[in-house]
Amino acid sequence: MAPAGVAVASGSGSADTTAAFKDVYSKLKEEMLEDPAFEFTDESLQWIDRMLDYNVLGGKCNRGLSVIDSYKILKGVDVLSKEETFLACTLGWCIEWLQAYFLVLDDIMDNSQTRRGQPCWFRVPQVGLIAVNDGIILRNHISRILQRHFKGKPYYVDLIDLFNEVEFKTASGQMLDLITTHEGEKDLTKYNLTVHRRIVQYKTAYYSFYLPVACALLLAGENLDNFGDVKNILVEMGTYFQVQDDYLDCFGDPEFIGKIGTDIEDYKCSWLVVQALERADEDQKRILFENYGKSDPACVAKVKDLYKELKLEEVFHQYEKESYNKLIVDIEAQPSKAVQTVLKSFLHKIYKRDK
Amino acid sequence: MAPAGVAVASGSGSADTTAAFKDVYSKLKEEMLEDPAFEFTDESLQWIDRMLDYNVLGGKCNRGLSVIDSYKILKGVDVLSKEETFLACTLGWCIEWLQAYFLVLDDIMDNSQTRRGQPCWFRVPQVGLIAVNDGIILRNHISRILQRHFKGKPYYVDLIDLFNEVEFKTASGQMLDLITTHEGEKDLTKYNLTVHRRIVQYKTAYYSFYLPVACALLLAGENLDNFGDVKNILVEMGTYFQVQDDYLDCFGDPEFIGKIGTDIEDYKCSWLVVQALERADEDQKRILFENYGKSDPACVAKVKDLYKELKLEEVFHQYEKESYNKLIVDIEAQPSKAVQTVLKSFLHKIYKRDK
Repeated sequence: MAPAGVAVASGSGSADTTAAFKDVYSKLKEEMLEDPAFEFTDESLQWIDRMLDYNVLGGKCNRGLSVIDSYKILKGVDVLSKEETFLACTLGWCIEWLQAYFLVLDDIMDNSQTRRGQPCWFRVPQVGLIAVNDGIILRNHISRILQRHFKGKPYYVDLIDLFNEVEFKTASGQMLDLITTHEGEKDLTKYNLTVHRRIVQYKTAYYSFYLPVACALLLAGENLDNFGDVKNILVEMGTYFQVQDDYLDCFGDPEFIGKIGTDIEDYKCSWLVVQALERADEDQKRILFENYGKSDPACVAKVKDLYKELKLEEVFHQYEKESYNKLIVDIEAQPSKAVQTVLKSFLHKIYKRDK
Repeated sequence: MAPAGVAVASGSGSADTTAAFKDVYSKLKEEMLEDPAFEFTDESLQWIDRMLDYNVLGGKCNRGLSVIDSYKILKGVDVLSKEETFLACTLGWCIEWLQAYFLVLDDIMDNSQTRRGQPCWFRVPQVGLIAVNDGIILRNHISRILQRHFKGKPYYVDLIDLFNEVEFKTASGQMLDLITTHEGEKDLTKYNLTVHRRIVQYKTAYYSFYLPVACALLLAGENLDNFGDVKNILVEMGTYFQVQDDYLDCFGDPEFIGKIGTDIEDYKCSWLVVQALERADEDQKRILFENYGKSDPACVAKVKDLYKELKLEEVFHQYEKESYNKLIVDIEAQPSKAVQTVLKSFLHKIYKRDK
């Protein structure tokens, strides 16, 4: 599946935080355009300038903003110093740059049309497959930014290792998604709950949920080895978030979520089809095999009818309730109140969302 | 232009070194397939296994082998300990992995047909644009390998920073190449010696020439900040190497170099066309503008005739001589005899090569 298009932990950031965050973008972009490691030509300067604005901006920046919010909670303050704000915003932007890098390349691999309400970068005239290299440059900028602003900090190595590990997990999840669900070999027997869970966890949850909090923990001077449970809780939350996304793709209000779901047409390994396969009898399975992944609206309608027949809405609400309760128990078992607050703030932003 | 297909520093490595080097590949591959940071499925294990053999192997490994050779010279020994051999081979393979990553993605961007005598990875059935993600995974493997084998070494951060910086320079060189020479806007007025030099330096020289020696220097406990001149010399050598490559593409013996040059047809920003533009009068320029970048053999012949008329063979031999003499002077100004030996061994492997 494509990375969630709806808000992650939406509602992050006060107006002040958002303004400070935007300022830091301008500064980081400027630094990238003056990087002494390359002798830019006018043309390449303009290229990078435009490429950054087109791909890094335009999202809701919830992942990035949540670094600042989490860091404030961990420190137990409402206001950060200028230096602390800058560093937290910088790490937030590194996550936004990472997201841009994934989206630029995913859109090429998925042959997508639009992203964030505009044509995908590789569809812009004169760009085409140069977008592959732009993706690489986006990734490289993260290393450049970290080196410039964090080299010498005691947690510099941990920060690099964190971004590397999360990137590796994401790329591995993307691989699993691509080789399981890629066209050419449409085969529903490959889809099951374990595969779905693994794709979602690796492809989305680590970078969207764990990474912002891990950045905040490192900024706060913590050792990530002591936060294995926090990682598990956030990955669990990320999984729950993607299941919601799969659910809303079919059962959400298109007016409200701002897009028309096409997971059925696109043969996505959605939580819904996986649950349907789990519950279907032989006749119902035949309906799925015959109609899933076809763009004909009649086929889509047959799949949706089957989902309703199998009461997947109820199954989802049951899952949602259980997942929420389990997360609350796990969160409250955390020794640090501040960490509990961070985790609950994430949970309450996504629980029972309808867009 | 595409990265040089002919040997870099060819002739590296004794039979013993080559055997040790191959053994280390098997070990590193195994580690990548057992990486606990991802829960592999059988299908994804097989995918990575095949992808690595297809893309990392099959080259001459001159870049990788030269790490070991350089390290031996710097240490002043003929034989390394088992541990030292393993670490030097591991860094050598990191460079080979980096090369594989660049080639997989470059071939997609250049829409190439073959690489190292087989179809480009993205042209293999069932692969297609999943190759973009495979490129990413190849890059990620380098970070995984460095973390596993070098974390805790005093030079771990320098190693990571080195690979990051060289990767950034290479991607920036590739960007410059793509936006200067990409189809759609064929415009010879953009080509000149400065542009050519910049593309070659960044896109090829840093990773092919500087990176192996820098790895050896770090292994030997040196601080790279003290080796700015060595970097400049190696980048100069890499530039000279690519100019040879451009020359051989047109004037080399296809039987001997193992491929038929198509730089003229492909509208490459070759050293030859740049030199021709520099020397051509208005009539000759018109010939270039009318015939460069066309696949019609009559057009190609007109360009080649012009190159001969402008005596570019002589211009090349003159450049070659001057470049060699300048490099020798710079090398002999190096305070360390061992460093001089490393640099001369590189130079003598590429000087006056005819393939």
